[in-house]
Amino acid sequence: MTPSYSQWSNKMVSAANGVDYAFRELGAGAVPLVLLQHFRGNLDYWDPPLIDALAARRRLILFDNAGVGGSSGTTPSTVAQMARDAIAFLAAMDLDQVDILGFSLGSFIAQDIALIRPALVRSMILASSAPQGAAGMHGWAPEVIDAVGKPDPDPDGYLRVFFAASTTSQGAGQETLQRILSRTTDPDEPTNWQTRQHQYDAVCAWGEPNHALLQRLSAIDQQVFIANGDGDPMILPRYSYLLAGLIPNATVKIYPDAAHGFLFQHHDEFATDVDTFLAEAPAHNA
Amino acid sequence: MTPSYSQWSNKMVSAANGVDYAFRELGAGAVPLVLLQHFRGNLDYWDPPLIDALAARRRLILFDNAGVGGSSGTTPSTVAQMARDAIAFLAAMDLDQVDILGFSLGSFIAQDIALIRPALVRSMILASSAPQGAAGMHGWAPEVIDAVGKPDPDPDGYLRVFFAASTTSQGAGQETLQRILSRTTDPDEPTNWQTRQHQYDAVCAWGEPNHALLQRLSAIDQQVFIANGDGDPMILPRYSYLLAGLIPNATVKIYPDAAHGFLFQHHDEFATDVDTFLAEAPAHNA
Repeated sequence: MTPSYSQWSNKMVSAANGVDYAFRELGAGAVPLVLLQHFRGNLDYWDPPLIDALAARRRLILFDNAGVGGSSGTTPSTVAQMARDAIAFLAAMDLDQVDILGFSLGSFIAQDIALIRPALVRSMILASSAPQGAAGMHGWAPEVIDAVGKPDPDPDGYLRVFFAASTTSQGAGQETLQRILSRTTDPDEPTNWQTRQHQYDAVCAWGEPNHALLQRLSAIDQQVFIANGDGDPMILPRYSYLLAGLIPNATVKIYPDAAHGFLFQHHDEFATDVDTFLAEAPAHNA
Repeated sequence: MTPSYSQWSNKMVSAANGVDYAFRELGAGAVPLVLLQHFRGNLDYWDPPLIDALAARRRLILFDNAGVGGSSGTTPSTVAQMARDAIAFLAAMDLDQVDILGFSLGSFIAQDIALIRPALVRSMILASSAPQGAAGMHGWAPEVIDAVGKPDPDPDGYLRVFFAASTTSQGAGQETLQRILSRTTDPDEPTNWQTRQHQYDAVCAWGEPNHALLQRLSAIDQQVFIANGDGDPMILPRYSYLLAGLIPNATVKIYPDAAHGFLFQHHDEFATDVDTFLAEAPAHNA
């Protein structure tokens, strides 16, 4: 039987760029699914039931990008450099083609990987995502960065941004938070202030309004599944529609009564949707 | 009891631009819902059950734009001039503010009305729509213009474009077509070849790829409801997502097992969605 994600051990791999990357993996398969994490998240911030559901059907790889959590190096201040750092990790893992699930900041990095190194990406899932340059999202709303941007982790702030205000969603959030914070086996290193500052620099640069930049999404020719919570205060659902309108081969689903962390709240439904999407995704010849 | 749309009589109104507009109307209310018709459609090409459902709750106005069907004048070859012609009709009707439901070419005209004369529009419904300048839709697919662009009306072509290939959808299409073609009370004049040619010129110009033009949608500050069929071959559903991502205050719904004429096939569901949308739409102060 597959062990729960809360039991997966940390591993390290040294890449050609001099960074030692912390990662976790399980399963077998020619084309693994690689997960890219959100702002300030390390390996422990993936909710175990979602990971367990995704790992049941394929090889799954999760890693800390350069400078994040247990990885060495410095967190860069642009999404493009984060994408190059992720590509260096995938090269160190001897991977020629992967499926990518990018969550929030990780979904920005996923878009840049697909544009920088198209042949590496078979298909993509963009969760709580937005296109670079879309108007109206620069730096997030003040209450959002206040909730998730303070020096010390703020569980209440996490619940306000990642979960909707309803009792159902807040209850799901409490459960997620309890699972994330209770890992005792081989925990990851916490993310530091340098990571927080440079990741936020990258988020702000991504959000500089630039209508012309929206057009670059027309070059993504992979199949893409776009998903968000209907009440995400950090990255509004309208940006998921914008992605779905600009990426030529995209489907989109908005999950009800949910916010930024819809994929943790609706872990079973989302994992099933990912299974369906990946089962239908064709090979990508870039 | 409200008479069915198949019994509504034709009326005429003379506008300041010298055009005599054919129209039909029923009901009372300060802010009427005004309908803008598709490529080559005249007043008879609105499916009666949809019109009856919409008219049950409000004042409804349908008209032939300049040069179309029973209206005098010449059909212009740009959407912008069609919008100005529609504004002239609304002025002749002494209307200061209206809700607009634009269908296909009518939805392009609706967007231009909202941009040219924002104060005139309280809220909009864009059915089977797309933004001006979106890549990949220039002149429609060859099999689409072949199906609906011939000199004589082609019922089979209409069914292929307006309804999906399933038995259910084709059956609904047969019913719609029978209702549309069986009107005997005070029918409208057929649209002519000049209308077909200039409307198609306007459609092609609207579809010239121009990424910069997408940005103009950010100026539409009304509440907008965007809707399409999931299998529309004429205007792909991705353009509905693009509209929903670019218009700041938009909701979007894609109807299953349907094509360009989803609003006729799903007339009850769509009319209910329109009722809900209009009940919640705030006043617009331009």
